[in-house]
Amino acid sequence: MLESWSFLDTVESNFRPLVVIELAKGTKEETIEWLTKRIVDKKADGGAQLLIKPLVTENGVENIYLVGASHLRLLLGAETVGLVKECSDHSMRTFTYSSRKTFKHFADDNHNFLTMAECQYIIKHELENLRAKDEKMIPGYPQAKLYPGKSIVRRLLTSGILVQIFPLHDGEELKKLSHSWYGQVKVGYQPLDDIRCYFGETIALYFGFLEYFTFALIPMAVIGIPYYVFAWEDYDKYVMFATFNLLWSTVILEVWKRICAILTYRWGTLLMKRQFEEPRPGFHGVLGINPVTGREEPVYSSIKRQLRIYLVSLPFVCLCLYFSLYVMMIYFDLEQWALDYHKENESNFSSLMLYVPSIIYAIVIEIMNRIYRYAAEFLTSWENHRLESSYQNHLILKVLVFNFLNCFASLFYIAFVLFDMKLLRQSLATLLITSQILNQFAESLLPYWLQKRYNRRMKKNMCSKKTDTDLSLAEQVNMEKEMGTYLGTFDDYLELFLQFGYVSLFSCVYPLAAVFAVLNNITEIYSDALKMCRVYKRPFAEPTANIGVWQLAFETMSVISVVTNCILIGMSPQVDALFPDSKVDLVLTVALVEHLLLAIKFIMAFVIPDKPRDIQVKLAKLEFESLEALKQQVRAFQMQL
Amino acid sequence: MLESWSFLDTVESNFRPLVVIELAKGTKEETIEWLTKRIVDKKADGGAQLLIKPLVTENGVENIYLVGASHLRLLLGAETVGLVKECSDHSMRTFTYSSRKTFKHFADDNHNFLTMAECQYIIKHELENLRAKDEKMIPGYPQAKLYPGKSIVRRLLTSGILVQIFPLHDGEELKKLSHSWYGQVKVGYQPLDDIRCYFGETIALYFGFLEYFTFALIPMAVIGIPYYVFAWEDYDKYVMFATFNLLWSTVILEVWKRICAILTYRWGTLLMKRQFEEPRPGFHGVLGINPVTGREEPVYSSIKRQLRIYLVSLPFVCLCLYFSLYVMMIYFDLEQWALDYHKENESNFSSLMLYVPSIIYAIVIEIMNRIYRYAAEFLTSWENHRLESSYQNHLILKVLVFNFLNCFASLFYIAFVLFDMKLLRQSLATLLITSQILNQFAESLLPYWLQKRYNRRMKKNMCSKKTDTDLSLAEQVNMEKEMGTYLGTFDDYLELFLQFGYVSLFSCVYPLAAVFAVLNNITEIYSDALKMCRVYKRPFAEPTANIGVWQLAFETMSVISVVTNCILIGMSPQVDALFPDSKVDLVLTVALVEHLLLAIKFIMAFVIPDKPRDIQVKLAKLEFESLEALKQQVRAFQMQL
Repeated sequence: MLESWSFLDTVESNFRPLVVIELAKGTKEETIEWLTKRIVDKKADGGAQLLIKPLVTENGVENIYLVGASHLRLLLGAETVGLVKECSDHSMRTFTYSSRKTFKHFADDNHNFLTMAECQYIIKHELENLRAKDEKMIPGYPQAKLYPGKSIVRRLLTSGILVQIFPLHDGEELKKLSHSWYGQVKVGYQPLDDIRCYFGETIALYFGFLEYFTFALIPMAVIGIPYYVFAWEDYDKYVMFATFNLLWSTVILEVWKRICAILTYRWGTLLMKRQFEEPRPGFHGVLGINPVTGREEPVYSSIKRQLRIYLVSLPFVCLCLYFSLYVMMIYFDLEQWALDYHKENESNFSSLMLYVPSIIYAIVIEIMNRIYRYAAEFLTSWENHRLESSYQNHLILKVLVFNFLNCFASLFYIAFVLFDMKLLRQSLATLLITSQILNQFAESLLPYWLQKRYNRRMKKNMCSKKTDTDLSLAEQVNMEKEMGTYLGTFDDYLELFLQFGYVSLFSCVYPLAAVFAVLNNITEIYSDALKMCRVYKRPFAEPTANIGVWQLAFETMSVISVVTNCILIGMSPQVDALFPDSKVDLVLTVALVEHLLLAIKFIMAFVIPDKPRDIQVKLAKLEFESLEALKQQVRAFQMQL
Repeated sequence: MLESWSFLDTVESNFRPLVVIELAKGTKEETIEWLTKRIVDKKADGGAQLLIKPLVTENGVENIYLVGASHLRLLLGAETVGLVKECSDHSMRTFTYSSRKTFKHFADDNHNFLTMAECQYIIKHELENLRAKDEKMIPGYPQAKLYPGKSIVRRLLTSGILVQIFPLHDGEELKKLSHSWYGQVKVGYQPLDDIRCYFGETIALYFGFLEYFTFALIPMAVIGIPYYVFAWEDYDKYVMFATFNLLWSTVILEVWKRICAILTYRWGTLLMKRQFEEPRPGFHGVLGINPVTGREEPVYSSIKRQLRIYLVSLPFVCLCLYFSLYVMMIYFDLEQWALDYHKENESNFSSLMLYVPSIIYAIVIEIMNRIYRYAAEFLTSWENHRLESSYQNHLILKVLVFNFLNCFASLFYIAFVLFDMKLLRQSLATLLITSQILNQFAESLLPYWLQKRYNRRMKKNMCSKKTDTDLSLAEQVNMEKEMGTYLGTFDDYLELFLQFGYVSLFSCVYPLAAVFAVLNNITEIYSDALKMCRVYKRPFAEPTANIGVWQLAFETMSVISVVTNCILIGMSPQVDALFPDSKVDLVLTVALVEHLLLAIKFIMAFVIPDKPRDIQVKLAKLEFESLEALKQQVRAFQMQL
């Protein structure tokens, strides 16, 4: 069987492995032969025209294959996926093979024109777009049905024949990147462009946002410190702090859009055309005709999905929310019990006991969040969404609502039912700090430690004392295939979102929250960087032009925080004292101020342009050029007549 | 000079005049010769390749020219402007000459494939895109400077050589249209498709919105009537009415987006690509390089414009707002005086006098609105916006703010300062009805009457008793060139916007407002139709895909109305009675309900999709096809290699 690849070695002597395909143990020979043939076949014959090699280790062939591609094939693939690159005249343009000479750093012998991450993305795209022709099933597996146009790789994945596809790390590059990223102690920006080159735009944009958000929190933190140090409790100072916070949070979210546009313009993704979305791997249904493509594919009634959403998912989410509130009430009983205990036995132990309920509650919240997360994933997958984006949106919505209630319900209860500002401040501090410590531990340090231990054992098994970069290819692949899979930026954004809630919702009660957030985020940058570089498999690069639904989530949070802060200020005894005669006037004034602040927020969001002027001009220029090109075509045609 | 056109008659014997160009009296011969040469010249020579004929009347040549085009030229022009037409398979596609056979109703000898309005739009577009080559000035007028790429027609207009360009009416079609539109008394929808064929999408969309809005108000009106008839004053009934109103107004605005998408998809404008915007005619500045096009054109510093906006326009608008409030206070003094007078001399006359201040105030408001409008136009034009769209947005913003305050400030004052619900109801009724009568009179009936008188005199002068359709071309042109110019849909939308304010802002105080609005709108449809068909010159068709900034304006109004209605209900004595012990609870409850309603509004706006599912599928299909076509190109190219 090995002969079938031998010709490749003569064609391309410098085969560079980019992507690893791991098939299940015991996969039938005929399946492997058919799959590799389809991958190697010419485009004209419906193949992917890539290069593939089995990985030969000491234990023989292990159903692990390395995929690469010729330089020319990658350039043509870059055109297919619509990559946008910088031209020699510094403008960004969609890459086409025929215009390749106009691009910066392009040379026919320059194999670094496309970054490794881009090459891997192209190969992933080509593999996923390898479609069944007239096969009715995967050879050797009659139960794995195919129909014309069905993505072969997706069917292989859902039927368990294909265990995983992942891109290889590049030891050399990774070492350089991790050194400049977190290897040295220094004050400065992250190497975002290098991160983007290695991990792709989605991850680079997350780190960009994390860094931006940390910088944006610094003014709040700086202003918040004297409130803590001098124990300021004056009415006017608190109002000023809250007002500053509210307007500031609007400004930073608007400015982020501009910075995001600058970054993604430079990376080319702002201009990248959206690809047509294929059904997500888990989508199932009876075969029918897709009204958009006119192709045969599984079809699932939208009404059935709506029924599942509104009759099952929605009640389930409500039930979970109710349960979460119930747990909260238990927490308050505990809290009360601890207080009583403290009163009865005034001791160091008992005053320490005061913090126990909060800590237990913070841990329980984290556990509930994680369990609910699995349930939400199961339910959303059961809702059978056709598109990955629709699945993601429904999942994010479910998880956000629950996490929001779970994290903040107790604080709302303390603030607006118990009216206990001291308890609020204490709970806020406990919740914030506990969740930060738990997160840092569970997300990065624990996996890092496990990975390190595993690596050490692996190396011991191999009986060699090489460093990472000296590993043979087979050793590298075997090590990487056991690494955890990075599941996307969801959890990282969620963490920032909840942190933003802790900082902004009750900012006028606990100005120190911003300080903790800044400290957490600085370590978060390092631990997330470590996690990306050392703990997880390299993820495929995903082009993206913005942070998507998270922008909306953060903006919603900042609207809610206007309401909460206005109420908190209205409830403070200092403000109360200003309206000694009439409580009604107080409430009316607070409501008026709240509406004014909301109006200012919306006007500010409307007035600040989403893209900086120079990006707008560049985009307009590109649009103008394409319109002119179209006109030229029409004109040339008219002149022929 | 007439010889230069003589060859046209041989080329195209059936010259159909579409557009009229009126030059100033005494325009120099060389200018006319140059202009007509440029209009007739081949595209390859930088001309517009249109047909032109002088209009010969009894008084000889009067510097009026008729422009037409060959059938082929119009089809090519349709491709240039990017018209979208229906194909034989009922899908909508951008028209191209090479694919012309695939379009519905296309035949090489079918000269009705393009509607007359479309032909006129194409000619207007071609005339406006007639650009200077190496001319430094308009021949014969050294002060009218030109530079390469400057639109000749725009320079002719700004230098006063060109008096006007307007499209000709089509007597036959107009008669048919006006018969089916308002000629017969019938219950039914307007012939929107016919209106669109004759007047273009912008105007058809206005009438579509007017009709939709009227239908949407009917439920409010029907529910409002019993409140008036039975003089219901119960708390729960009012709350129900207001809640219904608030949710209903959100629903109708969201549903309008869907209906608008259905209409504009059918008309092809939903798919039409935005053309690159040229500087508006009034824009001036020193010659520089446009960073987008790289062409030489007038450039005006954006900072200077910002200074003019923030240092002159903004203070001026604030001053006007202050003045408007000042006038309002005078009105309240008058009102008080009338009340005192009535108390002293209880008589029929004195009770009639009670209405006089309101009526005077309504008239003064109308006058102030109109004067302010001129000032706003002057200021916005002085701000020197480069684009017509930017000019329009700044103008609309200025006018909207002032009109809003002018119309509603007194009602806000009565409601929330005087707390006089009886006076509020009375003022609302007087303002609403007076402004409706004034508008109907000033907008349609007066011009119609003037026009009719003028026509009668014209016909008498011509000493002939022909009906409109039998007029000779020269008579028709002479009559139409004296007709008023329709200045766009701005005033019509503004009227609807203010009406929406009267209906929704205080709906729980005066449920009858919706009834008056419905009655007004029914007559408005007829009088606006009359105005379009009989009073004004035919306007050029303008393609548009939605009602633009007005959607935002209506949505903002509906948000404001949530706030006002909640406050009004909170202030009613019936609700007051529910909270006998604590005013604070009352205010808090009202605030809570208001926030809930606002949240429901935003969620509803988010959940209801902007486009119906079938339109979404059709759009996705087109996008998919264009992506597939692109892929095919790439694939074909790859196979060659």
